[in-house]
Amino acid sequence: MTSEVQQKGKLAKAASYILNIKTTCEKNNALTKIAEQLIIDQDTIIAENAKDLAHGEQQGMPASTLDRIMLNKERVEAMANAIHLLVKLDDPVGSLLERIEKDNGLLIEKRMVPIGVIGMIYEARPNVTVDAATLSLKTGNAVILRGSSSAKFSNIALVATIHRALEKTAIPVDAIQLIEDTNRETAKELFHLKDYLDVLIPRGGKALIDLVVNEATVPVLETGAGNCHIYVDQTADYIKSEKICLNAKTQRPSVCNAAESLLIHPDWFNEHGKQLLSALHQAGVTIIGDEIVCQKLDFAHPAAEEDYATEYLDLKISVKIVENVYEAIEHINKYGTNHSEAIITEDQLVADIFLNSVDAAAVYHNASTRFTDGFEFGYGAEIGISTQKLHARGPMGLPALTSTKYFIHGNGQIRE
Amino acid sequence: MTSEVQQKGKLAKAASYILNIKTTCEKNNALTKIAEQLIIDQDTIIAENAKDLAHGEQQGMPASTLDRIMLNKERVEAMANAIHLLVKLDDPVGSLLERIEKDNGLLIEKRMVPIGVIGMIYEARPNVTVDAATLSLKTGNAVILRGSSSAKFSNIALVATIHRALEKTAIPVDAIQLIEDTNRETAKELFHLKDYLDVLIPRGGKALIDLVVNEATVPVLETGAGNCHIYVDQTADYIKSEKICLNAKTQRPSVCNAAESLLIHPDWFNEHGKQLLSALHQAGVTIIGDEIVCQKLDFAHPAAEEDYATEYLDLKISVKIVENVYEAIEHINKYGTNHSEAIITEDQLVADIFLNSVDAAAVYHNASTRFTDGFEFGYGAEIGISTQKLHARGPMGLPALTSTKYFIHGNGQIRE
Repeated sequence: MTSEVQQKGKLAKAASYILNIKTTCEKNNALTKIAEQLIIDQDTIIAENAKDLAHGEQQGMPASTLDRIMLNKERVEAMANAIHLLVKLDDPVGSLLERIEKDNGLLIEKRMVPIGVIGMIYEARPNVTVDAATLSLKTGNAVILRGSSSAKFSNIALVATIHRALEKTAIPVDAIQLIEDTNRETAKELFHLKDYLDVLIPRGGKALIDLVVNEATVPVLETGAGNCHIYVDQTADYIKSEKICLNAKTQRPSVCNAAESLLIHPDWFNEHGKQLLSALHQAGVTIIGDEIVCQKLDFAHPAAEEDYATEYLDLKISVKIVENVYEAIEHINKYGTNHSEAIITEDQLVADIFLNSVDAAAVYHNASTRFTDGFEFGYGAEIGISTQKLHARGPMGLPALTSTKYFIHGNGQIRE
Repeated sequence: MTSEVQQKGKLAKAASYILNIKTTCEKNNALTKIAEQLIIDQDTIIAENAKDLAHGEQQGMPASTLDRIMLNKERVEAMANAIHLLVKLDDPVGSLLERIEKDNGLLIEKRMVPIGVIGMIYEARPNVTVDAATLSLKTGNAVILRGSSSAKFSNIALVATIHRALEKTAIPVDAIQLIEDTNRETAKELFHLKDYLDVLIPRGGKALIDLVVNEATVPVLETGAGNCHIYVDQTADYIKSEKICLNAKTQRPSVCNAAESLLIHPDWFNEHGKQLLSALHQAGVTIIGDEIVCQKLDFAHPAAEEDYATEYLDLKISVKIVENVYEAIEHINKYGTNHSEAIITEDQLVADIFLNSVDAAAVYHNASTRFTDGFEFGYGAEIGISTQKLHARGPMGLPALTSTKYFIHGNGQIRE
């Protein structure tokens, strides 16, 4: 018997060959239809979502998780609006990247093309279902969605809505596949679905991402975990330092581009350390400090080695005194997750050393790490933030969902 | 006890952070020194290579394999000359890809940076050792080389020469690591060396590539296998067809961009099939045909299903009659390896359907598949031909060995 994953993988692959050659106009028309259908179907979607919420409450899920699952009229409308914005974005498919004319008359064109079939494995948030489906469609890709059991009813309802919309369009319904069985085994099948899957993108907590990265043999676009640092250098301006540290830590502590660790030059710490950490403390941040920090401040808690490797995602920050920019770089390259790293300094030379040597998707001089985001960068859409080095690094907009292809136009040319 | 792979992985990673910030001038100087040292050391290198050849002969290796391993004065000089050409190529590291100025004054720059540590696993040819080491160095990457036992003495000698050259330069010797133990286990260790390896590139036969793709959990850049097709359409010009088919099949049958399969429109086959296949036959090509082909030509041998999936790498070609361009596309997307695929037709519309729908790195209209090559495309260097869809597809020049990084320059900006 063929499994659900195999069966839907095969359908998605076949659909990808049709979707692949659809025009921007056909794709945008389908997107608009999906946005409209979401509004038409919103009562059903919200009713199905209520089943997930009831089930989650029964299981004693924390309020924060329930909030991530919850859909109401406002949130469904927000999904529809995001699709209308997506329609307006440029379609990268077909863009000319290189044009080479050879002496023998051969014309070589390198163009952006869809990747093919994208696998998306994610947790909780049902809006990822709509995001992933519509971003894939916009870029001419088929998608296989594998959400979590906690949003099962919501995901089924949302995909049913998408399918209803696509039936009225030139886009094959099979282009969007949802794996309804949320058993662990279906995730594992996706890890090795080489025949049908061109890439697998995990979105969720560190445990999920580690599992995918360590087990999958299909190509993976790693997203997410952000153990971000701010290094406050000897010449850092106090006002900037306080502003940036407060923003990066407290503006939205639960996200991947929030700061988790503060490294401070000893001279600067002697002069301003107490003032800065008191400001953070007063903003509700728990300070987890090294020996020097704990000696100076009675509100600091002692840090263990593992604190430096922890993404708190909470109002909590580790603080360590480092000799200079080189020790800061070494510490970050050891404990960081290659996401977003900042230096605060008035010394351009020190800033350059830091920016060039820290191994991360985004490196900041005198600015908050919170800017690492597809929308902040002006991409208008984001499928995730890549913390790996191949294909895409940092916020991934629509071009990250494309591959390339060489189109070679000849007139009988052969190789001599 | 730490294994050789772990130990050298750690050294390469540490060296990558130093190499990462070296200037183009420092890297080119080191490359020139390597080219010079190859000439100085050539007698030693050739003597060590002779040990590999003697060992291979003892083991009864075929002459073609021995030829791939063999180094003589001419071949060592060719390696040195390739390095002098590499020095002249543009260094992609630091290139500006995007520049975004935000209203709040934040300046976001996306630049090319080295990937970090590249793992290279390959068979026979010792020139890959020098190629991989020097291309990695040019792009600021450290490299871990894992060659085959059949070229063990040659590889050790070549890396010793590279190290001798680097000792006189600003580039850390540790940037180039050779795994000397060619046991199967050291390859497997590389498959999972997540802490130190940013990408693994296999170069060699299908068995090696399949093994790496199916087992590795580190990111892989898949290269190589080419089951390339030529579809001869109803309106194909005869002269072009014969020229292109002969070139693609016979000019160098052992390489990945050689044609392995011919698909022919029935009308065209009735008119020109005998003439074309006789020309191939006379050029020494064994014709493996479907029923229709075998009925018409007594020199054709019957094809089995598996013939359509075989990369012969030999003077042999499978021939199948297909109804039209759509059947050709379906066949290629089923049996092809996403490498290079060609159509011969005078009908631009049919050509466009083919070029857009065939899923391959390079698609040709009225030209030989043999052009898929980094040097033919004018890249001046090639680390391999990618047949996958992420990061790089088709011939990989120097930019394929880079990642990107966002450099964000601020003046105290925070996210509102």
